[in-house]
Amino acid sequence: MIIVGELINSSRKVIAEAIMAQDVETIKKVASDQFAAGADYIDVNAGTFVDEEIQYLTWLTKTVQSASDVPCSLDSPDPNALEAALKVHKGTAMINSISLEKERFDKILPLIAGTDLKVVALCMSDEGMPKTVDDRMRIADKLVNSLTGKNIALENIFMDPLVQPLSVDGTFGMEFINSIEKIVTTWPGIHTMCGLSNISFGLPGRKFLNRTFMVMAITKGLDGAIMNPLDRKMKASIIAAEALAGRDNYCMNFLKAFRAGELE
Amino acid sequence: MIIVGELINSSRKVIAEAIMAQDVETIKKVASDQFAAGADYIDVNAGTFVDEEIQYLTWLTKTVQSASDVPCSLDSPDPNALEAALKVHKGTAMINSISLEKERFDKILPLIAGTDLKVVALCMSDEGMPKTVDDRMRIADKLVNSLTGKNIALENIFMDPLVQPLSVDGTFGMEFINSIEKIVTTWPGIHTMCGLSNISFGLPGRKFLNRTFMVMAITKGLDGAIMNPLDRKMKASIIAAEALAGRDNYCMNFLKAFRAGELE
Repeated sequence: MIIVGELINSSRKVIAEAIMAQDVETIKKVASDQFAAGADYIDVNAGTFVDEEIQYLTWLTKTVQSASDVPCSLDSPDPNALEAALKVHKGTAMINSISLEKERFDKILPLIAGTDLKVVALCMSDEGMPKTVDDRMRIADKLVNSLTGKNIALENIFMDPLVQPLSVDGTFGMEFINSIEKIVTTWPGIHTMCGLSNISFGLPGRKFLNRTFMVMAITKGLDGAIMNPLDRKMKASIIAAEALAGRDNYCMNFLKAFRAGELE
Repeated sequence: MIIVGELINSSRKVIAEAIMAQDVETIKKVASDQFAAGADYIDVNAGTFVDEEIQYLTWLTKTVQSASDVPCSLDSPDPNALEAALKVHKGTAMINSISLEKERFDKILPLIAGTDLKVVALCMSDEGMPKTVDDRMRIADKLVNSLTGKNIALENIFMDPLVQPLSVDGTFGMEFINSIEKIVTTWPGIHTMCGLSNISFGLPGRKFLNRTFMVMAITKGLDGAIMNPLDRKMKASIIAAEALAGRDNYCMNFLKAFRAGELE
């Protein structure tokens, strides 16, 4: 599982305060904790600061990279903010994200065309959120064709079919994970990505539902997630599911986690 | 999920002792506890008593039915024991089990031909345990054709693809759950069944692995399990997975379980 640590987001009060105070130590601590917990990318998001987003996203990127050895996931719909953050970023960043919404698509595509950047591609268009597998596949097909047409390798695309809440429609869970399955079988080599906590919106027992849904999505081929890497129970579910799905040679990772007391 | 309560089995010391002492109260208690916990069938197995199996299985069947309102799963490879137990059984029993092993097949088939009994059909032949999806489908195909050819309704067949330990081969988990998916898509209306704890044989953290594997199997369509209905954590995983899989209208069962404090 390719884990994008989600904790450095200005929608979280502790992060917003640290950004406003330009508190380097707090941001470095949240970055290094996520790195130590196994994050493959550290997401940086300053989206709540509309006027200062460019400045703050750049500062976050520099600060995070001074405290962790993994690339950042640069999280913004604004191409100017992404471009500025890319200028200070060391290594190969992940762009989070492009979608088929026309304005976003037209502005982000030139930034990533012909590069070896990783890119999260949301199955969203100007027609709104997709509901069914077919809705998502129509958008995914256009995204894959456009991106690979601009010399972006399939292996650098992380397709996010977008989870919708189960409380709205009982079919939304299976439609999402069946989309994952269809995407990975249609384009071998592509990656998938999701922030899956939206599945449990409006229901009780959310963390338990989220963990269970993660296991189901892994069963269908999910290999990337934007999540809290410090969530031990979620990590344990991922480790067990990947072993059972045959993605953990000789169950080495599972056995190591068990010996380290990381399972339950 | 159709749950077969597995606790009345003479391989368990407390049950073997109760059988030998003809201790009606102990057996009734284990039966009523499983019934109260939501078992749809109560399995009865006296297989460790070779010479007395017929007598003991009959006694278990009568005793269990005096304490629960659900049918029994009559668990024996011996047609004489099954026939004797059927004579005292009230309602529609489940026969556990037939397989493609020639001797077992030839002796069990006449017992169930043309009846409305439920039957567990193991994907096993005289060539040994199956490993791949194809191995299992070859056996399942012969079993389905033989059983339906004897006027046994597809809806009364519970196909068990037989779980093999992950510690033996890292592909065994996915081969099993992909067999479930293939069975339910090949024969719409058929049921599936498994005792899935074998998946974790030889590994640590077995209960956690078993619960995770249950969620994965439900994702692919499993709708029956031989298990301990008193295992609260396993029940919680099943309830969450079934809601997420769209098998729980308006999440009513999940919400009811949450309110009753049955989740975690």
